[in-house]
Amino acid sequence: MSILVVGTVAYDTVETPFGRADRVLGGSATYASLAARVLGADVELNAVVGGDFAEAHVDALRDRGVGLDGLVRDEAGKTFFWEGRYGHDLSSRDTLTTDLNVLATFEPDLPASLRAPEIVCLGNLDPVIQGAVIDQTAAAAPLVVADTMNFWIESAPEALAETIARVDVLLVNEEEARQLADTPSLVKAARDIRAMGPRTVVIKKGEHGALLFCDDDVFAAPAYLLETVADPTGAGDTFLGGFAGHLARSGARSSEAMRQAVVVGSALASFVVESFGPDRLLETTSDDLDGRLEAFQRLASVPALVF
Amino acid sequence: MSILVVGTVAYDTVETPFGRADRVLGGSATYASLAARVLGADVELNAVVGGDFAEAHVDALRDRGVGLDGLVRDEAGKTFFWEGRYGHDLSSRDTLTTDLNVLATFEPDLPASLRAPEIVCLGNLDPVIQGAVIDQTAAAAPLVVADTMNFWIESAPEALAETIARVDVLLVNEEEARQLADTPSLVKAARDIRAMGPRTVVIKKGEHGALLFCDDDVFAAPAYLLETVADPTGAGDTFLGGFAGHLARSGARSSEAMRQAVVVGSALASFVVESFGPDRLLETTSDDLDGRLEAFQRLASVPALVF
Repeated sequence: MSILVVGTVAYDTVETPFGRADRVLGGSATYASLAARVLGADVELNAVVGGDFAEAHVDALRDRGVGLDGLVRDEAGKTFFWEGRYGHDLSSRDTLTTDLNVLATFEPDLPASLRAPEIVCLGNLDPVIQGAVIDQTAAAAPLVVADTMNFWIESAPEALAETIARVDVLLVNEEEARQLADTPSLVKAARDIRAMGPRTVVIKKGEHGALLFCDDDVFAAPAYLLETVADPTGAGDTFLGGFAGHLARSGARSSEAMRQAVVVGSALASFVVESFGPDRLLETTSDDLDGRLEAFQRLASVPALVF
Repeated sequence: MSILVVGTVAYDTVETPFGRADRVLGGSATYASLAARVLGADVELNAVVGGDFAEAHVDALRDRGVGLDGLVRDEAGKTFFWEGRYGHDLSSRDTLTTDLNVLATFEPDLPASLRAPEIVCLGNLDPVIQGAVIDQTAAAAPLVVADTMNFWIESAPEALAETIARVDVLLVNEEEARQLADTPSLVKAARDIRAMGPRTVVIKKGEHGALLFCDDDVFAAPAYLLETVADPTGAGDTFLGGFAGHLARSGARSSEAMRQAVVVGSALASFVVESFGPDRLLETTSDDLDGRLEAFQRLASVPALVF
């Protein structure tokens, strides 16, 4: 298997200025798995759902080719539920409800067949659980690509630091980077985070694009420009899955490959925000992605300048 | 003459998390003129100062080659004064004082020698004054490149609309674009603003770069990445002057030339924010700029992707 995705599979209720969706399929592992599948990567998912998880959603993942040997169903509990509301310009959101449900007691115990991935893709999740997954796959020496969130930076800074020390590529958003390194400067934050362990740091800036810091290379990528965004939920997780999916496909780990992975992650994230929930991502084809990558290159191409 | 710059020449008192500067040389025309001079453009400035304007500051502009035939000295009054304070991450600022002083009664009456520029570069200023400058140079049919500000969008929307209708390239920042077009979508805002008249719209996003909309072309440029920013004052005006300076130097008006102008404007703006006031810009050489343009191209270069 090329990619093991570990994270949440959830039901989300989301309100944005453009509409509302109730109890749609969500979660970091859902978006990351589906994104990696657009690249054709061999993807296995490890996550827990409750007795209320609809068979139609299991089918939706299976139909897109996501391996479900690691999907644990805890019949006695309910699926993780998140409810949020986005502000006027979609750059801020309030969490209204977080019901951990079956996630509260989840401890990953990977089937043997899932313990030798080339890439481990850790969606936002308790850093202790992320660390356990790194333990269980360590023998295969996979590339570890991980996301985290302000919640863990505030509530579990030590466990998070221990996990980050074992991560190869850390993806964080702008505010999280500043918070993690306690500096307003993103350049300093990236340096400090890399000093914690990761060779590569990607700072996601939503509609403003992303910054990549890898070895001595720094890359500033804009976001793909959309006229309207329906729902930003899952954009960061989709970026993560697209990033990992590109590295799985290319096999390279150079900073050039990381630059490409940022562009692929950005392009895939631009699909998911066009609809509520994962609907648009569920129908995105490899051709759709290629078209958007071409458009991205036109959009972001720096003109030659004669010096 | 290639560029006529009209705007404010001011004294600024600025406080940022990194320090404070009292009554330093400032103003939109100051920064725009100095920036265009780095490109070697033939620049004439039209602005008013008071009796308190220091001879040393006249010399500073003259030493950098800014033509001062249009610098009006109103001995009875005082120079325009602005005082502001920036927040923690420099993305927001509060205006503490605005003393219009001699600016309150300024009406441009250009010397004949200044009425035939190739490019008119209008810094942030009362749109009625901007319109008068367009009138006085209209016979030469110059390219009109203009900036504006939320203050005029709120206080003089009709005069501003009349001026914008006569502008070829409008530069606004992100929030101003949203306000001017009354939409959160920057793509829609750019389309609406272009429908008001300008062929080209540049939306400046500060540390997040800039968006260019020209004919059917859209370009998303990141900002040059700095470890620390001392004082953002004048960055937008410097961008404007660099943009105009590039067009003057290249002679082209194609969307490709506009893309180049965005990159040059961004690169020059990255110098000015490194110091308080125009100190860093006053010593920036053409070689400094070329070095930063090369670094910018490495930073922003989108990798090739095999489809």
